[in-house]
Amino acid sequence: MKYTHHNNELNFKHVGEHVYLKGWVQKSRNLGGLVFIDLRDRFGITQIVVKPDHKDYEKALKIRSEFVIEVKGVVLERESKNLNIPTGEIEIEVTDLIILSAAETPPMTVSNDSDALEETRLKYRYLDLRRPVMQNYLIQRHKITQAIRSVLVDEGFYELETPILGKSTPEGARDYLVPSRLYAGHFYALPQSPQIYKQLFMVAGFEKYFQIAKCFRDEDLRADRQPEFTQVDIEASFIDESDIQSLIEKIMVHTFKKVLDVEVKAPFRKMSYKEAMETYGTDKPDLRYELHISDYTDTFKDIDIPLFNGKTYVKGLVLPNGASLSRKQIDQLSHLVKKNHGDALAFIKLTSEGYSGSLNKFMNDEHYASFNLNEQDILFLVPGDNDNALNALGALRVELADMFNLADPNNYQFVWITEWPLLEYDEEEKRYYAKHHPFTQPNDPKVLAENPKEAYAKAYDIVLNGYEIGGGSIRIHNQEVQKLMFKTLGLTDEDVKHRFGFFVDALKYGTPPHGGLALGLDRIVMLMTHTSNIKDVIAFPKTQSAKDQMMQAPSDVDEIQLKELHLKVGE
Amino acid sequence: MKYTHHNNELNFKHVGEHVYLKGWVQKSRNLGGLVFIDLRDRFGITQIVVKPDHKDYEKALKIRSEFVIEVKGVVLERESKNLNIPTGEIEIEVTDLIILSAAETPPMTVSNDSDALEETRLKYRYLDLRRPVMQNYLIQRHKITQAIRSVLVDEGFYELETPILGKSTPEGARDYLVPSRLYAGHFYALPQSPQIYKQLFMVAGFEKYFQIAKCFRDEDLRADRQPEFTQVDIEASFIDESDIQSLIEKIMVHTFKKVLDVEVKAPFRKMSYKEAMETYGTDKPDLRYELHISDYTDTFKDIDIPLFNGKTYVKGLVLPNGASLSRKQIDQLSHLVKKNHGDALAFIKLTSEGYSGSLNKFMNDEHYASFNLNEQDILFLVPGDNDNALNALGALRVELADMFNLADPNNYQFVWITEWPLLEYDEEEKRYYAKHHPFTQPNDPKVLAENPKEAYAKAYDIVLNGYEIGGGSIRIHNQEVQKLMFKTLGLTDEDVKHRFGFFVDALKYGTPPHGGLALGLDRIVMLMTHTSNIKDVIAFPKTQSAKDQMMQAPSDVDEIQLKELHLKVGE
Repeated sequence: MKYTHHNNELNFKHVGEHVYLKGWVQKSRNLGGLVFIDLRDRFGITQIVVKPDHKDYEKALKIRSEFVIEVKGVVLERESKNLNIPTGEIEIEVTDLIILSAAETPPMTVSNDSDALEETRLKYRYLDLRRPVMQNYLIQRHKITQAIRSVLVDEGFYELETPILGKSTPEGARDYLVPSRLYAGHFYALPQSPQIYKQLFMVAGFEKYFQIAKCFRDEDLRADRQPEFTQVDIEASFIDESDIQSLIEKIMVHTFKKVLDVEVKAPFRKMSYKEAMETYGTDKPDLRYELHISDYTDTFKDIDIPLFNGKTYVKGLVLPNGASLSRKQIDQLSHLVKKNHGDALAFIKLTSEGYSGSLNKFMNDEHYASFNLNEQDILFLVPGDNDNALNALGALRVELADMFNLADPNNYQFVWITEWPLLEYDEEEKRYYAKHHPFTQPNDPKVLAENPKEAYAKAYDIVLNGYEIGGGSIRIHNQEVQKLMFKTLGLTDEDVKHRFGFFVDALKYGTPPHGGLALGLDRIVMLMTHTSNIKDVIAFPKTQSAKDQMMQAPSDVDEIQLKELHLKVGE
Repeated sequence: MKYTHHNNELNFKHVGEHVYLKGWVQKSRNLGGLVFIDLRDRFGITQIVVKPDHKDYEKALKIRSEFVIEVKGVVLERESKNLNIPTGEIEIEVTDLIILSAAETPPMTVSNDSDALEETRLKYRYLDLRRPVMQNYLIQRHKITQAIRSVLVDEGFYELETPILGKSTPEGARDYLVPSRLYAGHFYALPQSPQIYKQLFMVAGFEKYFQIAKCFRDEDLRADRQPEFTQVDIEASFIDESDIQSLIEKIMVHTFKKVLDVEVKAPFRKMSYKEAMETYGTDKPDLRYELHISDYTDTFKDIDIPLFNGKTYVKGLVLPNGASLSRKQIDQLSHLVKKNHGDALAFIKLTSEGYSGSLNKFMNDEHYASFNLNEQDILFLVPGDNDNALNALGALRVELADMFNLADPNNYQFVWITEWPLLEYDEEEKRYYAKHHPFTQPNDPKVLAENPKEAYAKAYDIVLNGYEIGGGSIRIHNQEVQKLMFKTLGLTDEDVKHRFGFFVDALKYGTPPHGGLALGLDRIVMLMTHTSNIKDVIAFPKTQSAKDQMMQAPSDVDEIQLKELHLKVGE
């Protein structure tokens, strides 16, 4: 390319050089007859100056924000330096100025501090993406993707593609369907994950597979969900849990070093699902801060407190230096606890004035002393059954960390959550669901057969700073165990045959032990770039109602297209 | 991992070592009491031997083809060596044998020379993919993908993802549609290519983009087409044709060296569309052989031949040493010519017995001499209008090269086809179509405005050995030119607004000059692995009627799913 430099490269050392630059006009201003132009590209900004006696001066006067221009010129030392940017010591005196493309006034300001509404930003995404902060999200995404892939390739994994036009196998989320033109009334489905395909790669003997895979779920969207998302899909044969875990640790260590220059220590901590739930009230604990949950049931056994009467458990956590919380703040926390299925929130404070709190009239000094509080501590207590009390305290814990800034965004705490229950029982539907998916290997198939409720899975999630960034398991590689699993989930033989027949078949011709994991790429990028909006790390995202604001998709289509697909639109 | 070696690694140097292997049983046989097992993994085969007095002998007797086993043992020198495989000098005497997975007799033979029907192979794709030849196609695909990507990353291109759920913008091929659940009667479309998105990345200032992108076309399939295919999608700003071409040449040189250890010479030859058509009768000439087409119209001006009367052109080509072709063979070629819109096929031979051929009764020696034939040459002639005669001779040329083995599969001849017509006129519909796509920059917008038929495009295809492996262009970056283009294609303002409104809008806020190219990954892998079946290079392909034989997709879906999508199936 003919250009000599990017717009972040020139500094004092280049003074006197002839350079050739291009980019967008960030802004242009006329100061005492001189035209100053801030020229922007994806790397940075360089200041251009055009003097009144220059042949291109008239042209320069016409230039406005977002014009695309080329500049030839000489590097000069600036009079008033701007040491906030790398090129702030110099400016370019123009010898030739060419307008490549004019620009109308854009409907939003192209700068990091733009105050455009999200609707405007999504409609004019191509302008929103010009903002350096947005470019950085996607450039980091690129770098993260390359770093992850490089470890997998080095470790002998093959990057293999699987179809987007697959088969609908409804379990869990809703499929996106694609009507077939050649077979009336038949549909393809977009994959919720390449799960079956990747297991078939193992059956086929590839041994090590990965893919940066697009996945699709037609679910009602939450703030951090999109209809299509990207996962780093990994599967290997002849391995056990620790092989997969070491691989993922290697990927994370390399990626954090390469992209953020952050040293992450491996191996990561391992924690059972049970410990995570009981100590942190969640299966994705944020370990950047303590705030452990404890069981206070025994402590309250002999204290008569109406709020706790008839409750199986009393669980609680101590927030050091939390005694300063106001009544109003505590009311808000109480609200949060109830929203998360907690029965109620009680508290005990120790200040220089002694103990106080919502249980004061039921407690004496001896009772209080048994909590071993330090001055300025506050103890929160939630009565209820085990799961609900823990859930509520888990949510409270996150909220408190947020209020008291306990979580350093530059501290990355990974943890493996292991020993998952294999199944969940749905009391309403009176049936079991797979906690991960129906291909997960039970720790002991006998327990699955005899006492499904007690069955554990060879499954593991990887959690970073309170977010699940990946999940995986060792898979069932034995046809009989797979059949048992389907049966336990309440699928009839016919169901199984219709939906998974080919897959159960595949297991009988020599299937190696295998397992894997899928990393949520979007979420990893979010955590590594410190944004909480998933749309920031996706170039062309959908709104929360699954709409593309820029393209206006979904849209109506020609009648003839529907006819070819043998479809009619009903109500 | 606990295993010590792959199954291609052990040789004479390892004799005496204790090793730990795993894999599939290729075959197992009992010879004079000894059990011999060929153990296979994705790398190769190792011979295992179990003696009758060994503790695992009974187990070994039970082992059949495609069992998955683990073996601990000692490397011994073999008595009867097999020098055809890397491990043929040794065998492993078993100390421990573990069956990881049993196997029923598979419905097809798992070996390169399997004679299973394609239907069987597709139904049991996971077994078909166990065959080393099939594994190799996908492993080469992996390597080719990595090699291509590495050049792009090194050149500063960002790998950026674009949506699969997009908007239907029918021009050219038919879209796959995805019904929306939230908006009754509205549909997403799967992308035929990320064309618009990649241009928007340029509008957004990313400057260098690529993606290994899934693309979709709901067209009637030919042998080398699939409903979904993969392209290496590339776009850059502030560049011209030669920048893109150099980049692609760098990619090809690197990829052929890295994957095949073949030296490809760059820069590649450039040839105008006109020259390609007139000399090779195709826009994707195979340059591994000559067989140039020439114009014989003038030569026949003064010879009265009924077959040529009233025809505008007589075109022909000389096949050296082709005089041995039989009458029957020539009849078949004549058939081919007519199938390819040629009016007729005439021929002239020169053998030791003199001139002969289908025009003999109209020709004298003087006429014959003017062709400058060598002994054993055959000259084929096709009369007709320019395009049809050239087309027919283009097809004849390929067929002759095939019959006479003129094309060395290990010779890779790249050529750029340039100077494309911008538009094609459809006589029936009385309208223009874009020869590439409607975003292609005309060489001169004035010509497009005044005389569209004569307009040339800044477009370039890259052709390898007779196959188009990629195509691209410099794009329109000016809103007015884009509007002119749409108008020339017969789109009303309303059409444009409805389908491309946001895109035409985008062009007005400062769009850099830009262009790019898309490489057909499937086809590149086919050419580099010397297969002519596109299904070989796709892990889970569809049949020619767009069916997944293994999964049985497309399939019927629950009534409730259709109801949620507001759809009814008609006839």
